[in-house]
Amino acid sequence: MQRMALTWRREGKMVGFVPTMGYLHEGHLSLIRKARQIVKPEGVVVVSIFVNPAQFGPQEDLANYPRDLQRDKDLCKEATVDVLFIPDSEQMYPSTNSTYSTWVVEEEVARGMEGESRPNHFRGVATIVAKLFNVVLPDVAIFGAKDFQQAAVIQKMVQDLNFPVKIVVAPTVREKDNLAMSSRNKYLNEEERAQAPIVHKAILKAKETLKKTPGAVDSGQLKEELKRFIESQPAAKVDYIEFFDPLSLEPMKDLRPGCHMALAVRVGKTRLIDNALI
Amino acid sequence: MQRMALTWRREGKMVGFVPTMGYLHEGHLSLIRKARQIVKPEGVVVVSIFVNPAQFGPQEDLANYPRDLQRDKDLCKEATVDVLFIPDSEQMYPSTNSTYSTWVVEEEVARGMEGESRPNHFRGVATIVAKLFNVVLPDVAIFGAKDFQQAAVIQKMVQDLNFPVKIVVAPTVREKDNLAMSSRNKYLNEEERAQAPIVHKAILKAKETLKKTPGAVDSGQLKEELKRFIESQPAAKVDYIEFFDPLSLEPMKDLRPGCHMALAVRVGKTRLIDNALI
Repeated sequence: MQRMALTWRREGKMVGFVPTMGYLHEGHLSLIRKARQIVKPEGVVVVSIFVNPAQFGPQEDLANYPRDLQRDKDLCKEATVDVLFIPDSEQMYPSTNSTYSTWVVEEEVARGMEGESRPNHFRGVATIVAKLFNVVLPDVAIFGAKDFQQAAVIQKMVQDLNFPVKIVVAPTVREKDNLAMSSRNKYLNEEERAQAPIVHKAILKAKETLKKTPGAVDSGQLKEELKRFIESQPAAKVDYIEFFDPLSLEPMKDLRPGCHMALAVRVGKTRLIDNALI
Repeated sequence: MQRMALTWRREGKMVGFVPTMGYLHEGHLSLIRKARQIVKPEGVVVVSIFVNPAQFGPQEDLANYPRDLQRDKDLCKEATVDVLFIPDSEQMYPSTNSTYSTWVVEEEVARGMEGESRPNHFRGVATIVAKLFNVVLPDVAIFGAKDFQQAAVIQKMVQDLNFPVKIVVAPTVREKDNLAMSSRNKYLNEEERAQAPIVHKAILKAKETLKKTPGAVDSGQLKEELKRFIESQPAAKVDYIEFFDPLSLEPMKDLRPGCHMALAVRVGKTRLIDNALI
């Protein structure tokens, strides 16, 4: 992959990159279309599929993460992807001869929310993205807004470590009932799937509250209210709800329209996340 | 700098890179000559000068580190360096708008010796080298063998993070009395300078001991013996002496010819390091 990328570099070809964990859905396809739009027909679009062990906790769903390589290949072909890069774990984290031992850690943006609920998650994300950038050597890489904090961590990493890569964050794609598309939605049984739209409804409810309230809304109070609202669905359990400045990701206390909201909710055993400007 | 590097990349020019902290001496010049030899006259040789605050401990010599920019510039010109890159701290670690927060950490090779004596030193080294690689985009980078563990950490980082950079380690250049060249030698007063060759003499003594001893030499015993030998010089105080496998840097107990030795010795207030295959 790197050899090919070095050739493109010498040929002056623009490279657009979409890193994924596979089991592609319409959200991924929108990132791929964005990449193609940016690099133009004469540029190169690379998609990687790698279910990165380093970003999963020991109790998480690494082993069960949904996979369907044939379908992914077909979708990429349809979407005019030029190269589908599918390394295996032993290639990315070799264990023969020496132990893998180098990590990229971001210590500000990665602290709250997902970083708090999932220790070492963003260390794994930052490390694999740094590795993939060094292998694929893209000019531009596209990430989905659904993983808002992930995109923020990567943007901070790129800025701090001076990667010559432009980061583009593309909007979340949603099902008809506004559930954010995610490979993990596959885990939901019929009953849970029916309750899952509560996650996005909570965002709309928060937005509505800020809009109709003159002056600031207290974040603690709104969190309580939204938690009750979400957990009125019997299978739903809030992991976190956070309100923050969209640039610094600094939590906010006095909420007014223009702040950002993110939340993680377990529906049955499935952990769903969503976020929006409210 | 990065813009220029991206242009060279498009032009297919080979880039050789020598990162330094300035106050150049014959050791640095040998690295520059090596870079030129590798990239050929038609390639580009870049030298950076940056006294990297992140690799100095709070009690260390950051503020006093010797500087002579005019002399460095003259030496680089003489040595046919194409670009001398001299960023300042605010450019490498911006503090306005956001806090610098991304670090590259290597957790195996960086553990003992310098890593133990100088906490966070190698985090600072790995981070600045990753940043400089992303800015200068070299094909090859040259490091001095005097900082043996540093070169090993960087090689491990490049391997683990898949940097498309070839690392070359060039031999230590020595004064006539075998003191390893170092910008820090400037700190030594006349008396200390006269005692400083004890550091390399200890290496020769260890080599001699392994050579003349049939079977293995016990590392603990040899360390004790060398410590006494070194500290026979009144200004000298051993920081560490270590024997290890030159590839894994794993400390060794039963020593035979072919193992690697590294040591750090304070001569007065000046901390000197040296190493060799013994």
